[in-house]
Amino acid sequence: MDEEMPFIQGHLITENDRITYIGTEAPEDQGQFTEIVDGTHKVIMPGLVNTHNHAAMSFLRGYADDLNLQVWLQEKMWPIEGKFTALDVKWGTALSVLEMLKGGTTTFVDMYDHMGEVAKVVEMSGMRGCLTRGVIGLVPPEVQQAKLEDAVSFAKEWHGQAGGRITTMMSPHAPYTCPPDYIEKIVQAAHDLDLPIHTHMSESPGEVEQNVKQYGERPVEHLRKLGVFGRPTLVAHAVHLTDEEIDVLKQYDVRVSHNAGSNLKLASGIARVPDLLRAGVLVSLGTDSSASNNNLDMFEEMRLAALIHKGVSGDPTAVPAGTALRMGTADGARSIWLNDTGMLKAGMKADFIALDADQPHFYPKSNFISHIVYSASAKDVTDVWVDGEQLVRKGICLTLDEEQVKYEFSRCFERLTQ
Amino acid sequence: MDEEMPFIQGHLITENDRITYIGTEAPEDQGQFTEIVDGTHKVIMPGLVNTHNHAAMSFLRGYADDLNLQVWLQEKMWPIEGKFTALDVKWGTALSVLEMLKGGTTTFVDMYDHMGEVAKVVEMSGMRGCLTRGVIGLVPPEVQQAKLEDAVSFAKEWHGQAGGRITTMMSPHAPYTCPPDYIEKIVQAAHDLDLPIHTHMSESPGEVEQNVKQYGERPVEHLRKLGVFGRPTLVAHAVHLTDEEIDVLKQYDVRVSHNAGSNLKLASGIARVPDLLRAGVLVSLGTDSSASNNNLDMFEEMRLAALIHKGVSGDPTAVPAGTALRMGTADGARSIWLNDTGMLKAGMKADFIALDADQPHFYPKSNFISHIVYSASAKDVTDVWVDGEQLVRKGICLTLDEEQVKYEFSRCFERLTQ
Repeated sequence: MDEEMPFIQGHLITENDRITYIGTEAPEDQGQFTEIVDGTHKVIMPGLVNTHNHAAMSFLRGYADDLNLQVWLQEKMWPIEGKFTALDVKWGTALSVLEMLKGGTTTFVDMYDHMGEVAKVVEMSGMRGCLTRGVIGLVPPEVQQAKLEDAVSFAKEWHGQAGGRITTMMSPHAPYTCPPDYIEKIVQAAHDLDLPIHTHMSESPGEVEQNVKQYGERPVEHLRKLGVFGRPTLVAHAVHLTDEEIDVLKQYDVRVSHNAGSNLKLASGIARVPDLLRAGVLVSLGTDSSASNNNLDMFEEMRLAALIHKGVSGDPTAVPAGTALRMGTADGARSIWLNDTGMLKAGMKADFIALDADQPHFYPKSNFISHIVYSASAKDVTDVWVDGEQLVRKGICLTLDEEQVKYEFSRCFERLTQ
Repeated sequence: MDEEMPFIQGHLITENDRITYIGTEAPEDQGQFTEIVDGTHKVIMPGLVNTHNHAAMSFLRGYADDLNLQVWLQEKMWPIEGKFTALDVKWGTALSVLEMLKGGTTTFVDMYDHMGEVAKVVEMSGMRGCLTRGVIGLVPPEVQQAKLEDAVSFAKEWHGQAGGRITTMMSPHAPYTCPPDYIEKIVQAAHDLDLPIHTHMSESPGEVEQNVKQYGERPVEHLRKLGVFGRPTLVAHAVHLTDEEIDVLKQYDVRVSHNAGSNLKLASGIARVPDLLRAGVLVSLGTDSSASNNNLDMFEEMRLAALIHKGVSGDPTAVPAGTALRMGTADGARSIWLNDTGMLKAGMKADFIALDADQPHFYPKSNFISHIVYSASAKDVTDVWVDGEQLVRKGICLTLDEEQVKYEFSRCFERLTQ
């Protein structure tokens, strides 16, 4: 992702959690290294950064396909999610972390409940997580208050933990699920803690209409007036935007997590990604949960981002491969303020992955950036490192016990669906 | 794909090239079988049917991304394809057949030149192929005549070969690349040989405009008047259609190969698949070549077909998972008149594949049809059978030597790009 050197055949050296060298020249004394990894037939690239997920919702993969967003949320997702215990969140998240890690995602954003469980899974897995307790405010004041306190105490307790691999944010779930005064309280808490804000915004046409009806303005202006954009902010979706709203996002440096697969599946619409990019808004990629995707394959998100905007706009140069790759890596990291992650460059964090490029769909061995975006999948990932630690080796996760995770996940699922 | 029994946990028996039993009851005497395959943790499903490809174009994967169709074809594809020898077609096709087979595609349609080489690769691989020599008629009359004779002699020689696994068709490349009188000659040849016709149609807005300008009518009416639809016909793309054109396709039982990935990548547009399905047109799925896709993963095509029409129409019920799965299997087979293929049912051809379902993205083990369409990829395929013969075992192709194919392919690629 270094623009001066987009693709090389060469060597990469790490020390502790950092990359110390990348280049075509071989290091002189190979005896100085504690470990040497042979990269023959491998593509080494930055780990993928998934900027929007609700990992515990893996229980709901395939549970309610082909429905519209509000029905899907209110009649299908929320009732079963209401039954989730801390144990379910633990194992649901563990299954997703396993899927993400094995598929080359080294950092993810997670917004959910029982976030202490999520943080513990992230800590154990070795992955990097930007975590936030999402709060829905359509509840009595004392419940609102309790949720906010839970969000604050989670954010405080875990920010900077796991050797710095965990950071936290504050999250009103969405303008349509949080009354304005509640959003203001969350913004104040974010100021007090000096943390960014993450929220869902303008995902479906219906919620934009409802916002206008209820508050007299569209979501962007509504959130701006409530002071949200006075904090560093990452919004998920941002599908339905006017030109003026795009200008506001740019002006306040609001970052957008584009969830191409989820937006298609829930028929939410096609985000104005080429316009956002043209305006200079920082756009990254998120899978959203596996309930609306239905996998956590970030290669697929890069491919969708590169493909759909061409097909819909009629412009085959929209979102070229290099742009999609940057959205899935370096720009994903920058979107969550991890400026030393997401790029293979001396001084950056040693978060990187290896793909098996000795397969038919990587031939001819001519244009690997194209192959990564247009041809690869999560299943091509063989090895994964975060902070210089190897977490996946030859497709096997070294930090989580896959058999245990699948077994415990299935036990939870049986109980939830009894 | 049997609508009465969409998904079961049970047993499947084959004898020679046919399925003789599928059901939940175990067969009584297991000693009667020559081979028993343990399907624990496996999903067994019909092999995928790819109804539009130019397999030899694997050399051009990543060669010219992010350009519009006419520039891409005329300035990038055709000049390098002009250099292709029979040897290139052999190894380019072999690489694609390897990719397709390992990824669960058991039948493909191929339109190209040097088709004898393609047929020999198909024969050796054990795969099923519906093959056709595509002819471009913008050449002097004697070259037109020679190409037509080549197409006829290929179609005659190979139809019904390889134990019936190979069938053939006649193919004018497209209305914009074949003068009307040449198309009529090809139609006459198809009548003489009693073979179907395959052609590209209405892929980009530009070619539809050109057709109107040059011939005074849109491609569907143009082809209808030339007698094309008097033969059984499969058209690829059919992106730009009017309501009246959809009616004509239905009236003549013209089958449409929907190439979702290719149409997006080349910014050709979004085919009116929900409208075609509503009208009762038989729609199947094709990858098109890896130059415009860029892989041959039919799971991705099913997923794209299920996703993009939701996102574009705003209707989350458009192309549900079961429909996409049928398009990729049973309807694909019917589209090329293989009515005894594409379904797991007693009496049908024993073309089926096994997926490793013991992976995080197949959990919970609740809705496998959803998981196949929305979560799986070519890389989940472990085993492949065609005509009851096992062609891929634990991810290894048993009929083609992968190392040899990659080596010879790379030698050809070097020569082509010198």
